[in-house]
Amino acid sequence: MEAVLGVLNLGDFAQNFSKMGMFPVFDLAYYIVSILYLKYEPGSVEVSRRSPVASWLCAMLYCFGSYILADIMLGGSPIDYFQYNSHILLASAVWYLLFYCPLNLFYKCVAFLPVKLVLVALKEVVRTRKIAAGVHHASHAYHHGFFIMVIVGYVKGDSTLIMFKFGPTKASLYGAILFTMQEAHWLPVSKSTLILAFTFFMASSKVVMTARHSHGSPFALIESWVCHLLFGSPLGGSEEDH
Amino acid sequence: MEAVLGVLNLGDFAQNFSKMGMFPVFDLAYYIVSILYLKYEPGSVEVSRRSPVASWLCAMLYCFGSYILADIMLGGSPIDYFQYNSHILLASAVWYLLFYCPLNLFYKCVAFLPVKLVLVALKEVVRTRKIAAGVHHASHAYHHGFFIMVIVGYVKGDSTLIMFKFGPTKASLYGAILFTMQEAHWLPVSKSTLILAFTFFMASSKVVMTARHSHGSPFALIESWVCHLLFGSPLGGSEEDH
Amino acid sequence: MEAVLGVLNLGDFAQNFSKMGMFPVFDLAYYIVSILYLKYEPGSVEVSRRSPVASWLCAMLYCFGSYILADIMLGGSPIDYFQYNSHILLASAVWYLLFYCPLNLFYKCVAFLPVKLVLVALKEVVRTRKIAAGVHHASHAYHHGFFIMVIVGYVKGDSTLIMFKFGPTKASLYGAILFTMQEAHWLPVSKSTLILAFTFFMASSKVVMTARHSHGSPFALIESWVCHLLFGSPLGGSEEDH
Repeated sequence: MEAVLGVLNLGDFAQNFSKMGMFPVFDLAYYIVSILYLKYEPGSVEVSRRSPVASWLCAMLYCFGSYILADIMLGGSPIDYFQYNSHILLASAVWYLLFYCPLNLFYKCVAFLPVKLVLVALKEVVRTRKIAAGVHHASHAYHHGFFIMVIVGYVKGDSTLIMFKFGPTKASLYGAILFTMQEAHWLPVSKSTLILAFTFFMASSKVVMTARHSHGSPFALIESWVCHLLFGSPLGGSEEDH
Repeated sequence: MEAVLGVLNLGDFAQNFSKMGMFPVFDLAYYIVSILYLKYEPGSVEVSRRSPVASWLCAMLYCFGSYILADIMLGGSPIDYFQYNSHILLASAVWYLLFYCPLNLFYKCVAFLPVKLVLVALKEVVRTRKIAAGVHHASHAYHHGFFIMVIVGYVKGDSTLIMFKFGPTKASLYGAILFTMQEAHWLPVSKSTLILAFTFFMASSKVVMTARHSHGSPFALIESWVCHLLFGSPLGGSEEDH
Repeated sequence: MEAVLGVLNLGDFAQNFSKMGMFPVFDLAYYIVSILYLKYEPGSVEVSRRSPVASWLCAMLYCFGSYILADIMLGGSPIDYFQYNSHILLASAVWYLLFYCPLNLFYKCVAFLPVKLVLVALKEVVRTRKIAAGVHHASHAYHHGFFIMVIVGYVKGDSTLIMFKFGPTKASLYGAILFTMQEAHWLPVSKSTLILAFTFFMASSKVVMTARHSHGSPFALIESWVCHLLFGSPLGGSEEDH
């Protein structure tokens, strides 16, 4: 695979891509999409009127839930990430604009489909990075703790896990498994290549799903067959999980 | 403000006041008032009859919930405070006397209004100290983590947060913000002066509220206006939060 | 007591018994019995068909819940134990065989009463070791934290506590208290003797209870009297706790 990428001159690109800073552009997109999903939740607008503190806390959970959960999993302080004041202030500004902007102007801008598709794609760039960083962080703490790497990478990739939603982000689990295999040298690719490939796959599938208002999973067919073979689940029966 | 206090000869007093030991007198008052509130909860007396272990656990949560939550927030052991055997035994003795004393004698003594007012005032002394200590502790772990300081100070000041009650102690939040501003040198007062002033404010407002059986907040009017301006809440609409 | 054991030549036996490795035979029995109890739960078989990941997570909680809870209590990573890949794989294999084995063959073997009685006895050997290890671990972190030792020993002895079931394992609490007293040198026995005696007591009472399909506690009568004297509970009233 490295050879193919070399021919296509992608090796350097992957290297540069994996070193690109996320703050503030990509993080901003991440916060906007996360809090946008919060606003889609029934009742969230009323909560923002009655109790701004509760609404702000929810927004922070949606934005930083993956950091909180990963810190808990590794035995650290759950509010460790709140030391980065600029990130918190940026997310708070997004929350304020999305919920309290006059005429709902900011919401209308970012919920406009073409804009939203770009933001969703940028969010997946951040998500892939977070999975890779989570697996790497766990591998430092536990050198052969492959289960721990998968778990930390998984929770790092999915902010909504902290709300006990095992939703349309099973992809984070597969990503965490791939990055753990890379970390254990079971995959013959460099980490930067894997980041590029997984980002491309996640962003494109998420953009297509958002454009088609679909909640299906790109893995549904394979999952269904694997579950049938291993666990005797009825074919197509794993649909309810999504 | 320091100058005014100097004229009034309060500087030394504040210094001494902020160094005064809390154990055992003030802590005892804290435990009595905390477990008294537990006994006011409907059903708590039946629980103490049927399952003393559960009742004891609840009493410990009411007394040490703020330490547990603050330790969790800073990534420590949630039962770290249980190493102080004398504090646990003192609180357990208070729990035993309040729930199982013959003729309910101890309860009748401490629930007698004049006694209770003194105990409530003493409890606020401990609460202010705990907020200041929480902010200071967090500022050691995270030098510029102002959000973390506010959160740790807040949970340290409010034992009932661990039961997910966001009740009449929003004052702890304002206290945590004040002490964080002092720690960040944004307030031109010394810490001992702030402790004295905030203790005085908390104790007096709590005594008045207890005497009048009121559950209102001294901040209700200001909060209502701020919420109206910033978040478009209807005026007086934040009443439901209290 | 040491003298009596010396006469019976039990001292050396206790020493050797307390040094015996638990992996893999005893641990295997522990996993089998734990996941067997999971399969007894209503609905667990349907969950295993619809969502194997959720079923696997439950099985891991049943097997390693005590480690997770003890790690949380001491402020460590809750998934710390997942670094032992061989233990996780062994438990996963047991889970797979118990839920997905053709013809339910494995389940029928281990649920066969004579086999189950042996497994239940082996499980109690592991439980006693875990209580002793938990108390010892806590005593290293907190030299005079007797409450912490009891709490950590207790949660280490009872995997189901993590599911908020305070069920038929109050024995773990008494075990934790005994081992804490031994650690504090208040009991004139060596740790290996206590391990042997407590293992014998737990295994025999659990085997008898399993054989008689009883859910009563061997301590019910004493508990009832102590609760009556100390807390004024009606005699026999603590039955509901079990």
